[in-house]
Amino acid sequence: MSAGRTLPAGVADADFGRALAAFGDAVGAAHVLSDPAQLLPYGRIMLPVPDEEHQPSAVVMAASVEEIQKVLAVARRWRIPLWTVSTGRNFGYGSAAPATAGQVVLDLKRMNRILEVDAELGTALIEPGVTYQQLHSYLSERDIALWLDFPAPGPLVSPIGNTLERGGGLTPYGDHFQHACGLEVVLADGSVLRTGLGGIADTTSWQVNRYGYGPYVDGLFTQSNFGIVTKMGLWLMPAPPAHRTIMAQWWDDADLGGAVDAIRPLRLAGTIPNFGILANATLILTSMVKRSDVFDGIGAVPVARANEFAKARGLPPWLYLFSVYGTAEQIEVDTRIVRRALESQGATLVLDVDDPMQRNELSLQAFTLFNWNSGGGLCWFSPVAPNRGADVVRQTQLARRIMDDYGVDFMTGMTINGRDILNVMPLVFNRADAVETARVRACFDDLLTQFAKHGYGFYRTGIGFMDRVAQLHGQAGHEFALRLKRAVDPLGILAPGKSGIRI
Amino acid sequence: MSAGRTLPAGVADADFGRALAAFGDAVGAAHVLSDPAQLLPYGRIMLPVPDEEHQPSAVVMAASVEEIQKVLAVARRWRIPLWTVSTGRNFGYGSAAPATAGQVVLDLKRMNRILEVDAELGTALIEPGVTYQQLHSYLSERDIALWLDFPAPGPLVSPIGNTLERGGGLTPYGDHFQHACGLEVVLADGSVLRTGLGGIADTTSWQVNRYGYGPYVDGLFTQSNFGIVTKMGLWLMPAPPAHRTIMAQWWDDADLGGAVDAIRPLRLAGTIPNFGILANATLILTSMVKRSDVFDGIGAVPVARANEFAKARGLPPWLYLFSVYGTAEQIEVDTRIVRRALESQGATLVLDVDDPMQRNELSLQAFTLFNWNSGGGLCWFSPVAPNRGADVVRQTQLARRIMDDYGVDFMTGMTINGRDILNVMPLVFNRADAVETARVRACFDDLLTQFAKHGYGFYRTGIGFMDRVAQLHGQAGHEFALRLKRAVDPLGILAPGKSGIRI
Repeated sequence: MSAGRTLPAGVADADFGRALAAFGDAVGAAHVLSDPAQLLPYGRIMLPVPDEEHQPSAVVMAASVEEIQKVLAVARRWRIPLWTVSTGRNFGYGSAAPATAGQVVLDLKRMNRILEVDAELGTALIEPGVTYQQLHSYLSERDIALWLDFPAPGPLVSPIGNTLERGGGLTPYGDHFQHACGLEVVLADGSVLRTGLGGIADTTSWQVNRYGYGPYVDGLFTQSNFGIVTKMGLWLMPAPPAHRTIMAQWWDDADLGGAVDAIRPLRLAGTIPNFGILANATLILTSMVKRSDVFDGIGAVPVARANEFAKARGLPPWLYLFSVYGTAEQIEVDTRIVRRALESQGATLVLDVDDPMQRNELSLQAFTLFNWNSGGGLCWFSPVAPNRGADVVRQTQLARRIMDDYGVDFMTGMTINGRDILNVMPLVFNRADAVETARVRACFDDLLTQFAKHGYGFYRTGIGFMDRVAQLHGQAGHEFALRLKRAVDPLGILAPGKSGIRI
Repeated sequence: MSAGRTLPAGVADADFGRALAAFGDAVGAAHVLSDPAQLLPYGRIMLPVPDEEHQPSAVVMAASVEEIQKVLAVARRWRIPLWTVSTGRNFGYGSAAPATAGQVVLDLKRMNRILEVDAELGTALIEPGVTYQQLHSYLSERDIALWLDFPAPGPLVSPIGNTLERGGGLTPYGDHFQHACGLEVVLADGSVLRTGLGGIADTTSWQVNRYGYGPYVDGLFTQSNFGIVTKMGLWLMPAPPAHRTIMAQWWDDADLGGAVDAIRPLRLAGTIPNFGILANATLILTSMVKRSDVFDGIGAVPVARANEFAKARGLPPWLYLFSVYGTAEQIEVDTRIVRRALESQGATLVLDVDDPMQRNELSLQAFTLFNWNSGGGLCWFSPVAPNRGADVVRQTQLARRIMDDYGVDFMTGMTINGRDILNVMPLVFNRADAVETARVRACFDDLLTQFAKHGYGFYRTGIGFMDRVAQLHGQAGHEFALRLKRAVDPLGILAPGKSGIRI
């Protein structure tokens, strides 16, 4: 065994060697990685926390349910924790790295079969290693008129991985978990569960009905560590006859509350059928210029400076990008309604703008945050707000004040649901700079504390903050999760620390 | 103790007397019912199974979380199973009666507070005893422009009870569980869990974000026995500026498959935003005439006879009632689109028909099944089909053939989702006739067997059939449910037998 290896807690070096050999028997020695150089990509975390706290012990790449069952048997025998990733592109939340050091990453990227697509019903059944790019190519090669909904780093990402994190995109199918239908899950003991109507022999309806009979359990396998999902049904949106992406612009920084209150009724009525994104100028600037182009003073980019810079380039302090979909007639009518409603609240509208994420066009264009600042640091702060101007303004002021204190640039790209808003703020920083990284970490901790104190919860968080965030969401919920964990994984071998859950 | 009382299994008469006294201490003696006459309404089950198999031992009416905790302590001490009902109006699925004889019904109808309504966000927080009627009155008295979505026996029913059964209605909010947001649950050990963002101190977002952080667990408490739900958040639809209910009629019995295939794209595109109901002539006739008016021969009402009778009254063999909602402009455009699509598939359309369930108007009008046949027997058979003509035709032919064999009238009122259809068939019979009741029971068993053999699952089932239906959905899912049950209710005191789950 090489020096400097991070061993699983409580596992002796020799035993770990035996376990690695047994993993090799399970999946083929070529699919077990344990050299430090091989592990490097699995330890790149972008977050403002030390790499060592998230150093994997090895990587095992299983190619089938049967191989996963064998891997589990090895893990149970030597009590080796397994951190499962689909493709491991959970950027800004920890990528492929485990919540705690000394876990073996179970990488499922070799399980990449598209098992079924039903063009008529708009469903797919896929494995964890399938990427949005792969599914997109599959559909376009076959001229299947179904659209994908994908997150910003879409091409690289696994629909299963993203859905199990409860990630989202920008079309009307933006709530990914809500469009998942039927899971296959390998439990810690190796048994295989098919949820929903997947347990019926020769089922006709696994990918069309989400609930099945009896308790609906799919939600258990999101943001958690209760099983290894090996197949997922996915609903795909029939390509609409036409669509139009619209940008609503508000030209005063103080317009935010009014903007939210103008958008809410349109979202609730369904006239705007997709989440869209409500962004501030600074976030938009990251896709156009470098930070140093905007500001080279001390501390965070001042909001007034960013707004002034953006205005000079024709961009407002706040903009909302959304779409309407349907026939030309439907689009005309819906455009009239949203125009009237938003203009009466001070917006100017630009019709027919371009947003690949709202029209099934995969690109990495949306994920340009790293251009802003060299050093590759990224950490998402994702509080939830009621969809109400007053709450969003309160959150924004609070975040700006805290970030200013730590010299962190404020940016947000909000997901506008019907009743809530995911106020998703990227903290972009230079991870090569230890002082800056420490500042961002302190800032993030403070943000969590202050937001929770104001009664706001969090939609998602990265490794390094999971224990803390779980704790902020209350003891009863956490204890309930632990109770379930003990029932489904009594040895605690699956991803200890995920969402703060470990036994 | 009176003779003939049904005792909980394994509980001695004297101990049960002590338990009843302790229940009285917990909730007040007046709120413990144990006289056979008092228990009578709790034993009325409508189903084709013997009353004795579902005879409750007593009824306890708790008025608060604290009282429920005391009731649980008593139940744990003497190992007394508690069958929780909200208002107990689960008609055709067992009403208020327990899955097995000898349970104490925990009736929560006294917990009937409407705790909060947010007119702007369209949310409510309610207790289990609240009925749709009560909530409707609350909103209309305050001129709050929010609509309810309710099941057919709406006025009498509890939104919590219906949602936890995963019941549905006919507006765009017809999937009730999908519009539930945040639960308060008392677990078997008396601890209280608030799901979603309910665990954040002074939460701002409990009723606006369904998922919270970490595993999403709300689905666990539907069609199950893992806890006692004491509060639920509910999303309400903002009253649309206008709406139009449309009836599409297909005049040939063989048009069914084409009708389904014509409807599906409109549902998937959202042009038809509500489930609506696709019904056969016989189901519609139950609201107009008695069975004996239609047919007085031997066996089931022949389809040809029902269709002929309906046609003479201007009704087609198949009709689809649905609505479009929005501004007058939106309704015009959407009407044109659906008209074109459905007429090209052989439908004739009647615009502006009347369906109270699609417009927030509570009435019992929709629930007229009992007029068809005296004797008050009702049992729902609810298979799931992919939303595809061929599957729906196959199900319909299969059901008709089996029902014909047993002399049971075929009726269906299908819920048309995007990708699946709940093919909800009421078996209406004379429960006073023991021979007929036995025939219906045998028919129901046969339907279950044959449909499962064809790969179809079931959306829901009544007491008396729960073990069987759970078994048809596969061993792995059932064992997983049992594992969860042992974790959250190790003594098995909560509703043993619900969805086949008991330890």
